[in-house]
Amino acid sequence: MNDVAAIVADMGRRARAAARRVAGLSTAVKDEVLLRTAERLVEAKDRIRAANEKDLAAARGKGLSGAFVDRLTLSDRVIDSMVQGLREVAALPDPVGESPRLWRRPNGLTVGRVRIPLGVIGMIYESRPNVTIDAAALCLKAGNAVILRGGSDAIHSNLALAEILQEALAACGVPGDAVQVVPVTDRAAVLELLRLEDDLDLVIPRGGEGLIRFVVENSRIPVLKHYKGVCHVYVDRGADLEMARRICFNAKVQRPGVCNAMEGMLVHREAAEAFLPAMAADFREAGVEMRGCPRTCAIVPEAVAAVEEDWGREFLDLVLAVRVVDSMDEAMDYIARYGSNHTEAIVTRDYARAMRFLREVDASLVLVNASTRFNDGGQLGLGAEIGISTSKLHAYGPMGLEELTTTKFIAFGDGQVRQ
Amino acid sequence: MNDVAAIVADMGRRARAAARRVAGLSTAVKDEVLLRTAERLVEAKDRIRAANEKDLAAARGKGLSGAFVDRLTLSDRVIDSMVQGLREVAALPDPVGESPRLWRRPNGLTVGRVRIPLGVIGMIYESRPNVTIDAAALCLKAGNAVILRGGSDAIHSNLALAEILQEALAACGVPGDAVQVVPVTDRAAVLELLRLEDDLDLVIPRGGEGLIRFVVENSRIPVLKHYKGVCHVYVDRGADLEMARRICFNAKVQRPGVCNAMEGMLVHREAAEAFLPAMAADFREAGVEMRGCPRTCAIVPEAVAAVEEDWGREFLDLVLAVRVVDSMDEAMDYIARYGSNHTEAIVTRDYARAMRFLREVDASLVLVNASTRFNDGGQLGLGAEIGISTSKLHAYGPMGLEELTTTKFIAFGDGQVRQ
Repeated sequence: MNDVAAIVADMGRRARAAARRVAGLSTAVKDEVLLRTAERLVEAKDRIRAANEKDLAAARGKGLSGAFVDRLTLSDRVIDSMVQGLREVAALPDPVGESPRLWRRPNGLTVGRVRIPLGVIGMIYESRPNVTIDAAALCLKAGNAVILRGGSDAIHSNLALAEILQEALAACGVPGDAVQVVPVTDRAAVLELLRLEDDLDLVIPRGGEGLIRFVVENSRIPVLKHYKGVCHVYVDRGADLEMARRICFNAKVQRPGVCNAMEGMLVHREAAEAFLPAMAADFREAGVEMRGCPRTCAIVPEAVAAVEEDWGREFLDLVLAVRVVDSMDEAMDYIARYGSNHTEAIVTRDYARAMRFLREVDASLVLVNASTRFNDGGQLGLGAEIGISTSKLHAYGPMGLEELTTTKFIAFGDGQVRQ
Repeated sequence: MNDVAAIVADMGRRARAAARRVAGLSTAVKDEVLLRTAERLVEAKDRIRAANEKDLAAARGKGLSGAFVDRLTLSDRVIDSMVQGLREVAALPDPVGESPRLWRRPNGLTVGRVRIPLGVIGMIYESRPNVTIDAAALCLKAGNAVILRGGSDAIHSNLALAEILQEALAACGVPGDAVQVVPVTDRAAVLELLRLEDDLDLVIPRGGEGLIRFVVENSRIPVLKHYKGVCHVYVDRGADLEMARRICFNAKVQRPGVCNAMEGMLVHREAAEAFLPAMAADFREAGVEMRGCPRTCAIVPEAVAAVEEDWGREFLDLVLAVRVVDSMDEAMDYIARYGSNHTEAIVTRDYARAMRFLREVDASLVLVNASTRFNDGGQLGLGAEIGISTSKLHAYGPMGLEELTTTKFIAFGDGQVRQ
């Protein structure tokens, strides 16, 4: 076994051992670790900025893009948001130990499910060092040990943040192995981590589609992920067109680079003539490029003719695919074919079609008369989120604290044996 | 792409297309398919027996073991139990469409989770043809399409059962692609199935540890599985020793070849002198071989000295590892090291130790004063089960109908956009 494999395997074993301790921590101690980390972040701001500066200098030296350097930067604003995030997670209710219901079997055995931590979680992410703190906070609050593997370009920043976390854990008497940052930048470390099926219970990759596919293809450990968000709004015939304009504008323009932004707009042919010109005027003003089907282009002269690759594409930019459809069935077929099971919305006044859309569309969030931008743990009321899952097992949609736990069965007997 | 790959990929595509239809079926139609299948099984018994006879003749010709031939046999008793199983699943409540709770966000958006089918499930199992019917029934009732891949030695039996299912689906107007049996016996078909990550949502392997490891190592699709059941009973100091005898006897002897049978018995040293001789007498009478630690062997003369491999071993037979421990902590450390996260029980009179054992032991079912044999969907009150999961994601413990579903978020708005 080479060095990287040995280092990573040892981290896994230590995390597994720590997980038993972490699972038994009281809510008060877990919250104390989070609040103490927040305090230390503020106190040690200079140290963090200095470490971050090393990463930034290296990134600039390599000629990495401005957007990349931007994501890598631990500005005062980013540090403040980490501090704020820690305080919010500390304030959330602790899911561990909840037992919604006990029931009694005919033989008198009392049975129930009780919520428990998953155990050890591996986070694999790119060069946003703030994820180190955000993910550690959520995993820890849900009673898990965590191994964090951020992008190699953020290594100095991540190790500085790991030090802060270690100080907070030590101050609260919690084993340091509960939160570990992989110190190896070699990509082989990721592969080694994905092989530790005995010591890791879950892997969460966060980043581009390439990273996520790499993790899924190489992992023997269960993975929660989403590849991409190709979200649609369907504007029904008879819809309130003013409402439809506000919703579509918000879904596309409010933050175009995120996974719950609208990438495709579907318009019923009976609404198209009245809706598209006004909508196009709003989009024109905001600099949105419309790529339309022939019927769209006939109504909106400045729309560009869409090519096949535009349908189902995640633009992550002020670009939008637009198609006029003959029926809601056509819209739903389109979504089944080109959607990504992320977020789908209908704007309608019709009760039956609203209910059918809600029931039949397969996406982690389906909305009636609201913007796709609401697919977010905070917006839906789960508190913070560690990501959004578009695969169905365990979690479908935003993953909050509860999704970082599982349940076991417990049974209270008085001597029952099986007949 | 070769033939096997093409056949399996085509089955996946057809299953995915059928899944949308199956998800929308009413409970009444799904139940009708199950009851109709039960009727056809009775009517077509001779046809099934004839197909099964071909498999049995081939198995005998290959010199396969009596136990193997036994599992392969569709006797009247096995056919009756399939019929009974279908009727029981039809009588269970339909989980699809349940929404335990809706909540309202400050902006007026009403949000909730609603239970939906997983989509397409792949079942990979060995040569018990009754699994074909049992698994199809559960998957279908939960609104899923299913692809069934049984052992190659059961191919004629499985295809005959598939025909029955097809007749029932057709009679109820449900697409035949909802339930498909892989007609290819080549093992390559399993590998091809495990690559269909776009068309399958879940794979459930059932069989020996070798099959399950093969599936986990080769699958890009989420897998729910358990490798083995190494279950323990810990007899605490001060326990009711008569109760402990009854529970340990039941856990070991009632059905030794199953995953929830006891494989290791841990006895507090203060209970050992009084408990072990009487327990050993019961076991002797039942033909149970005890493999003990030195302290056990000193008390029970006929106990064989255990070797290291006996600790944590799944005997699946009338053999038992026995260890005397100094404390409950030692017992829990032993369970953490040698257990398989399946089922663990304590026999005690002490309230605090009972609660600590329930809280700290990591297993899919933890019991106080009851036999490990209760880890079963039917026994715990879930209705039928499709298997027991010892990994924590999605399901931990017996998997009933609910575990064959997931939830999506829905939101009822009246024009909300994100600020």
